[in-house]
Amino acid sequence: MLKVALVGFGTVGQSVARILCARPAAGLALTHIANRRVERKRVGWVPPDVIWTDDFEQVVGSDADVVVELIGGVDPAAEWIRRALAAGKSVVTANKQVIAQCGEGLLALARDQRRHLLFEAAVAGGIPVVRGLREGLAGDRLVRVEGVLNGTCNYILTRMADAQVSFEAGLSEAQELGYAEADPSADLDGADARAKLAILTLVGLRRRIDVEAVPLASIREIDPIDFVYARRLGCTIRQVARAELLADERLLAFVRPALVPLTSNLARIEGNQNTVVVEGAFGGEASFSGAGAGGGPTAVSVVSDLEAIARADAAGHAGWPSASSAEAVEREFEAPHYARFIVADRPGIIASLADVFSRHGVNVDAVLQEPGWSKSELPFVVTLERCSSAAVGEALTEIVAFDFHARRPVWMPILASGGGPS
Amino acid sequence: MLKVALVGFGTVGQSVARILCARPAAGLALTHIANRRVERKRVGWVPPDVIWTDDFEQVVGSDADVVVELIGGVDPAAEWIRRALAAGKSVVTANKQVIAQCGEGLLALARDQRRHLLFEAAVAGGIPVVRGLREGLAGDRLVRVEGVLNGTCNYILTRMADAQVSFEAGLSEAQELGYAEADPSADLDGADARAKLAILTLVGLRRRIDVEAVPLASIREIDPIDFVYARRLGCTIRQVARAELLADERLLAFVRPALVPLTSNLARIEGNQNTVVVEGAFGGEASFSGAGAGGGPTAVSVVSDLEAIARADAAGHAGWPSASSAEAVEREFEAPHYARFIVADRPGIIASLADVFSRHGVNVDAVLQEPGWSKSELPFVVTLERCSSAAVGEALTEIVAFDFHARRPVWMPILASGGGPS
Repeated sequence: MLKVALVGFGTVGQSVARILCARPAAGLALTHIANRRVERKRVGWVPPDVIWTDDFEQVVGSDADVVVELIGGVDPAAEWIRRALAAGKSVVTANKQVIAQCGEGLLALARDQRRHLLFEAAVAGGIPVVRGLREGLAGDRLVRVEGVLNGTCNYILTRMADAQVSFEAGLSEAQELGYAEADPSADLDGADARAKLAILTLVGLRRRIDVEAVPLASIREIDPIDFVYARRLGCTIRQVARAELLADERLLAFVRPALVPLTSNLARIEGNQNTVVVEGAFGGEASFSGAGAGGGPTAVSVVSDLEAIARADAAGHAGWPSASSAEAVEREFEAPHYARFIVADRPGIIASLADVFSRHGVNVDAVLQEPGWSKSELPFVVTLERCSSAAVGEALTEIVAFDFHARRPVWMPILASGGGPS
Repeated sequence: MLKVALVGFGTVGQSVARILCARPAAGLALTHIANRRVERKRVGWVPPDVIWTDDFEQVVGSDADVVVELIGGVDPAAEWIRRALAAGKSVVTANKQVIAQCGEGLLALARDQRRHLLFEAAVAGGIPVVRGLREGLAGDRLVRVEGVLNGTCNYILTRMADAQVSFEAGLSEAQELGYAEADPSADLDGADARAKLAILTLVGLRRRIDVEAVPLASIREIDPIDFVYARRLGCTIRQVARAELLADERLLAFVRPALVPLTSNLARIEGNQNTVVVEGAFGGEASFSGAGAGGGPTAVSVVSDLEAIARADAAGHAGWPSASSAEAVEREFEAPHYARFIVADRPGIIASLADVFSRHGVNVDAVLQEPGWSKSELPFVVTLERCSSAAVGEALTEIVAFDFHARRPVWMPILASGGGPS
């Protein structure tokens, strides 16, 4: 019987405890629950012999076999995980920031200690993607992992697409439904998805990256009109987190809004769901989809990790890349692009844009304009032939300086449905 | 270094050998290739020390650690797997019929022998769903596993939906593309998907079922007009393989064409792809999608199993249900239904149908009729309120006897997007 100490008794911790209490036969015994000011957390439905404490030292000094870290944040969680491993305990965590930032060192410590450090719940809770990539697709050589990894963003984007609500209204709805934090910056601007992408890169591509090196772009500037044009192009818009091994083994990574074909796996995931899509050199594309967040699904991932340890599954000890230096992250890529402008209309605007794009070696593919808009705030879209994202960025920096803009221009790559940006 | 003997050197066997030769560092060494009349199979790209043989006895008597069984069919594959395990070897197989029909006994033998018997490739090759259900979602209590498990059927159905081709034309296309066998009965009539469903039921619901007890219905009678009506109902048509634990713990299972909402995970899988959707009591719905067949994807699943054995993953020895008797399979269920008729029109037909349905306690919800069809072969659809599938079957048996039919009527349940048939 594996003795389990829960550290952190919020939504996920309570769901973990509920599963452990509902399925007592699974070889797992809940022995400790630790939380700050634990008295206000006490519930009557856990076994009476569970020890409640607000002192992590009591957990470290206990006979628990596994510490489940659910307090979130890097400090003190990373240090507590380190101390638990050093004390000879295995650790299960749902903490994406700790694994993304300090996972390599903690895994090395777990290996040295012959203990497990498992983190299925840190990416896409309820979707067994860490195990799927590490073990289920171990026989392939994965060349791309990407996903819709933030349910808040996906909820807002699908509401904008389906109900033509503004970004602000979509965000308010998400907050009312409890999908978005009071400060939603980490969701909207990509830091949340970036941490998950770093973990998937480690697990799937077996490359360690410096989280901060992954470029981000926010979904805040997406407007409902962008979905009208995206649909004309056979696409919709998603916050895409992608890591890809290029042919020369450089590693491309980004988190940003992008157009994706309506027929792609990324487009098919709607509402606050998550999906992870991988491409293997031998097996082609596979995808994993589900809730991605929430107490129940995240707790299922935590308990699955606990059961893996109970099975004395040795896989947690080995198979991790032991390189200690982070891979360089390639930030620029080639793809067709979408650029949306909202202008105070006057003659010569298209010519001015075309001139700038041309000087940066970027070819205009088409100009799209929906009828029926005011001349003073006229939206239109320029699609660009396959070109480097750096060139588009430089051209746009120059274009922003023109005085005809009624709103700041927005640009996004148009991602192909399989393979890299096409 | 794990010594691997390949038995069967067809498409999948060759793909497995290619991966093993392309990634020599993975702790796996290909030592034997066995096939009938092996001389015609020899290739130059495997290491020169590989032993080629057409004698299985030579494999059983060899020092190979793992036998990979890729000959297909039950006889002699099941006996060969038994002999390999008895000889102290682990076994990896892609053989859905053997696992569906004899899996329980073979797993017990593997357990007794302290050897592995792994079969990720037997269901949905390239999609790590066996490991995903057994380990990744081990922390949940799954109550439903279902899927689109036959790429041939799904290719035909999506072609019928998208290009309005007839069933026969869709089948011919599938055969030309190599997706369908010369005799496609096992695909079209459900036996292929049924074997896979039996395995998913064992792995996900931890219930053993008698494969023959799962009722089948063929997709052969689906007509392009059914997609027109399905779309009017917000649905499309899929060959659905479903196993579900009912509230009273009875096990419902079937393989049959069914209407599924366009927004469901089952509807989203197109062409010759496969998907598996599971519902857990704690974690809700998760899905796994990908190729499902083909040399490369299936070989990835085989090699992933080999790597799991190389990691000395003990999970293969334990965790299987050891019940030796098969669960009873519930064949009937309640759902709204779709019934399509093609008739030589005359007054009183609807009244006749309504009378029969009414006598069987089945309420008509709506009658749908698209304009523009000939009176002599007039299609229309009757939707039925939630009722038992047995009652619909009995009513239709009676209705078939009327003389106004120009074609045999077709009926299907309308499945809800989550949960059981609603």
